[in-house]
Amino acid sequence: MRHFLPGALLITVLLPAFANDNTPAPQHLEPPFWWAGMAEPQLQLLVHAPAIAGSKPELHYPGVRLLKTETLPNPNYLVLTLQLAPTVRPGGFEIRFRDQATGRLRYQYPYRLLQREPQSAQRQGFGAQDVILNLVPDRFANGNPDNDRIAGYADHVDRSDDGGARHGGDIAGIRAHLDYIQRMGYTMIWPTPMLENNLPRYSYHGYAATDLYRIDPRFGSNEDYRQLVQAARQRGIGMIQDVVLNHIGSHHWWMQDMPAPDWLGFQGKFVPTRHARTTLSDRYAAAADRENFSYGWFTDTMPDLNQRNPVLATYQIQNTIWWIEYAGLSGLRVDTYSYSDPAFLARWSASILREYPHFSMVGEEWSTQPLVVARWLRGYRNPDGYRSSMPAMMDFPMQDVLRQAFSSNESWNSGFNSLYEALVADQLYPQPERMVLFDGNHDISRIYSVFDKDAALVKMALAYIATIPRTPQLYYGTEILMESRKERDDGAARRDFPGGWAEDKVNAFTGAGLSEAQQNMQRYVARLLNWRKTANAVHKGHMLHFSPEDGIYCYFRILGKQTVMVILNKNTESRELALARFTEGIGKRTKASDVMDGRQFRLAETLALPARSATILELE
Amino acid sequence: MRHFLPGALLITVLLPAFANDNTPAPQHLEPPFWWAGMAEPQLQLLVHAPAIAGSKPELHYPGVRLLKTETLPNPNYLVLTLQLAPTVRPGGFEIRFRDQATGRLRYQYPYRLLQREPQSAQRQGFGAQDVILNLVPDRFANGNPDNDRIAGYADHVDRSDDGGARHGGDIAGIRAHLDYIQRMGYTMIWPTPMLENNLPRYSYHGYAATDLYRIDPRFGSNEDYRQLVQAARQRGIGMIQDVVLNHIGSHHWWMQDMPAPDWLGFQGKFVPTRHARTTLSDRYAAAADRENFSYGWFTDTMPDLNQRNPVLATYQIQNTIWWIEYAGLSGLRVDTYSYSDPAFLARWSASILREYPHFSMVGEEWSTQPLVVARWLRGYRNPDGYRSSMPAMMDFPMQDVLRQAFSSNESWNSGFNSLYEALVADQLYPQPERMVLFDGNHDISRIYSVFDKDAALVKMALAYIATIPRTPQLYYGTEILMESRKERDDGAARRDFPGGWAEDKVNAFTGAGLSEAQQNMQRYVARLLNWRKTANAVHKGHMLHFSPEDGIYCYFRILGKQTVMVILNKNTESRELALARFTEGIGKRTKASDVMDGRQFRLAETLALPARSATILELE
Repeated sequence: MRHFLPGALLITVLLPAFANDNTPAPQHLEPPFWWAGMAEPQLQLLVHAPAIAGSKPELHYPGVRLLKTETLPNPNYLVLTLQLAPTVRPGGFEIRFRDQATGRLRYQYPYRLLQREPQSAQRQGFGAQDVILNLVPDRFANGNPDNDRIAGYADHVDRSDDGGARHGGDIAGIRAHLDYIQRMGYTMIWPTPMLENNLPRYSYHGYAATDLYRIDPRFGSNEDYRQLVQAARQRGIGMIQDVVLNHIGSHHWWMQDMPAPDWLGFQGKFVPTRHARTTLSDRYAAAADRENFSYGWFTDTMPDLNQRNPVLATYQIQNTIWWIEYAGLSGLRVDTYSYSDPAFLARWSASILREYPHFSMVGEEWSTQPLVVARWLRGYRNPDGYRSSMPAMMDFPMQDVLRQAFSSNESWNSGFNSLYEALVADQLYPQPERMVLFDGNHDISRIYSVFDKDAALVKMALAYIATIPRTPQLYYGTEILMESRKERDDGAARRDFPGGWAEDKVNAFTGAGLSEAQQNMQRYVARLLNWRKTANAVHKGHMLHFSPEDGIYCYFRILGKQTVMVILNKNTESRELALARFTEGIGKRTKASDVMDGRQFRLAETLALPARSATILELE
Repeated sequence: MRHFLPGALLITVLLPAFANDNTPAPQHLEPPFWWAGMAEPQLQLLVHAPAIAGSKPELHYPGVRLLKTETLPNPNYLVLTLQLAPTVRPGGFEIRFRDQATGRLRYQYPYRLLQREPQSAQRQGFGAQDVILNLVPDRFANGNPDNDRIAGYADHVDRSDDGGARHGGDIAGIRAHLDYIQRMGYTMIWPTPMLENNLPRYSYHGYAATDLYRIDPRFGSNEDYRQLVQAARQRGIGMIQDVVLNHIGSHHWWMQDMPAPDWLGFQGKFVPTRHARTTLSDRYAAAADRENFSYGWFTDTMPDLNQRNPVLATYQIQNTIWWIEYAGLSGLRVDTYSYSDPAFLARWSASILREYPHFSMVGEEWSTQPLVVARWLRGYRNPDGYRSSMPAMMDFPMQDVLRQAFSSNESWNSGFNSLYEALVADQLYPQPERMVLFDGNHDISRIYSVFDKDAALVKMALAYIATIPRTPQLYYGTEILMESRKERDDGAARRDFPGGWAEDKVNAFTGAGLSEAQQNMQRYVARLLNWRKTANAVHKGHMLHFSPEDGIYCYFRILGKQTVMVILNKNTESRELALARFTEGIGKRTKASDVMDGRQFRLAETLALPARSATILELE
């Protein structure tokens, strides 16, 4: 059996006495183990072994009942549904598969119900009090060169090839630099996917899984991952797993022995998606286009899953819950969210929240239209009656406006005015502060390059992202002004973080070899994010903003007696800002403390704003 | 008395016998006359004369009761409220103003209640079956050179100055060319405002009214206007009046003798608006910004009206109704709609529809965000509870996308895909087909210039505007490829329509001197719009569209047995389009008739699409 139990939990499990005989286990039995005391009483097991459809399963354990056994079109599969009593105790039992004709024992599998960690169901997900770091594990730090080459994994490390090759970054690399991540002020890590992607080439990105229950060994083991999460948690940092519901990799083991033709979109035929995401709520859309969007494939290397198949749907829901429970996750980022079957997504999101009512998931819906994104939010009333349970979505609309607003000239419909006006769409979001606003991610050009290497603009944008009613997410390397092309170029936007490899001459973790500008930005980000941890008014205060004027945008976050005032000055000269206009935000407060430099002063009639700057003040 | 009665209605009115004595009329008494049988039983009269506040009004007419008399801060005003019985008969009566102390008769005014035209209240407004022509009267045709100079009106005709001077176009010019407008297929005319704008300069545009009950004499008389509407109606063409609720001109007679300081925003002090339209529904907006938006001034020559003053609000509502009833309007276009007081706008729109339940008004809300525009629509549920009654708004969001979509390259988020995706916002519009989509107007650059003089793109854009679920509006001169600058330049975008002046060498009305390309476009527009008159499926059919592919965008309008198929091919080469993908729209139909060239043919497996073309087919 490839999957091993988490060491810490092993002691709570009674290994059955008959686990050592010579009867083989099925090739796959998933989920490989489960937990006692979950909210959902049914547990579906997908069993894969030659001709297993001709077998009859049996098991004996108090509180566990074999509810039903289903065959699939492929006789190498069997689907068991167990009913777990609310009182079922953690423990182990054999599941035996006997030939229906002869009664001969063909396979057996030592199943385990683990004990859940205390308060597992009540875990708190990420939210507006957090700042998320998005990193690409293969490109962040190589903590264990021993796993750069693994037998049976053909895609090789070649650091000279940014485009498609692996670079050797891994779980050990992240773990080794948790202190840096903590020092910078991040409270959540979202690594791009780390499940096994055993493709012959272009496997480093992780979005083409070949085993949904296994961390890619070039990143480390399942246990390494679990320990990374624990180590991060000890530093107050949570882990957000990148979940791909829409597709698998073309080298997933299902593809060699399909459970059923309808597990894939278009019965396994490669039909490319036209990405027509609006089809889902567009009253004029053709049904064929809707079908194409939900079931068309991204590429021929990413077969699209058809979750109208109920066995597959349950498999995926359980797979997600398994990782949350096993690894101790704080949240999920869901890739290509809208591309999956919409009814499945509603069920999936509701199922996760049923198990973990205070958990967080953020979905990727790459649209610049707020109402297209809002469709997926818990509490949003879609005209067609569709109801979703997602607490958060990535704020692509605001991210798009932000990039344009900071890099364009000021006019009545560009620059800060477009930023100001875009916030009117918050009326569509039931919880705007849970929307995840980002400076960049692994799929888009780096903000420093988009801003034509204007570090002052980057600082202003980060200050904005960190202080409006949003959950901020930054892309690794922003803090050291990493560059890309201005147009999308994945290789350029996912370069290695300097210092992550022993041979690196520059080390951003220690600061060695960084330019003054890089060090300056690094200090800025650390100061901004660490201050933000304590800024309750920013986490949950009321937002009050004033329409921009003369390239200056001023807003407040107000929570009881706490008032944070933010002033963005886009002008390339300093300005004296008359404060009379902002009485509604300043109130009777007379003292200010500058968050970035600690300077304290009394508020006067005007406030001096440095050129191209964000001024963040706590008022008293 | 400056205002005279419509001749046709005069015979129904009994002129009172005592109308000929020497007692003066007040300088202003407005509305100057009214009608019997309106839905609203109260009629407010604003009376302006020296020290009239010291007078007591009296009147005697069956069914008319003087409900109350109010003074204003300025003693030269008196406000009378009459109660009209449902049974009141058309007729005339004197309103006498006697000195309160001496009883001496100081003023008298022969008031008249006219008989309404049959079915006046039941008039049908414009809608999806119409195509609206927007023209600038001063720049369209000079039908009466005698009114080019009028004593007492300082702003002179100078055709060499496009920027700010008057050019002499007038009502007679429009009337003389109704046959052309009819031939082109327009069914509605929206001229920019024609009320008196007696400013020393820059008066031609009409948005700075100096008398709200008088057509500017340089355009013609009130009666000329009324007759123009009648003449147009005989050709099946309705009139849409451009209404400015937000402001008046700085030379309006009120400004010399203000009724009350609070009739103007900021008590008459010039405070420029920051145009922050999102303040109205932005939950984060500062109250001061909201105040600035609703009551700040456009320019110092356009004092902003403060309709929180109830006398002013009623004055404006009655003024609108007066013009509808007097001139026989089919609709209103409301300038700078959102800039007026929001509570007033709700009352205004509801009041108009109370008098004319099937009437149409379209408001200008110059935002590219659909939810900002939707706020004003009848039936839209605003999160803050605001309810408006506007049947239609100008579709600025789609107009913006359209200009970008046709002039940009095709990609997943530009070109036809952005056009396709933008229609998802129709879920915000209770009646999308009543939204007015336009190729241009008097405030923006001309589409032919924006499209870099690519006439084929203009044709495609017009075909699109004419066939999606919208009420189309075209700007005068589009049909002869008139040019402007690409950036906003009002003078360049409002050039004289050739042939409108006797001295013009080119005459677009007769075709004399037009280039072949211009004639070709003129024929195209005439054919498109005249066909559209009969295309019920386009007026009210279901829209079905297919996501664009390879620079080709295909959609259908379906109403019972009527099916219109539209295919836009943006490629600069011809294409053979496989039809199998469009079965949902084509159904079992096998025959097609090309709307533009009359060609009839049987549908085959592919359809030949000319380069850069719109193909419009009726299927059978």
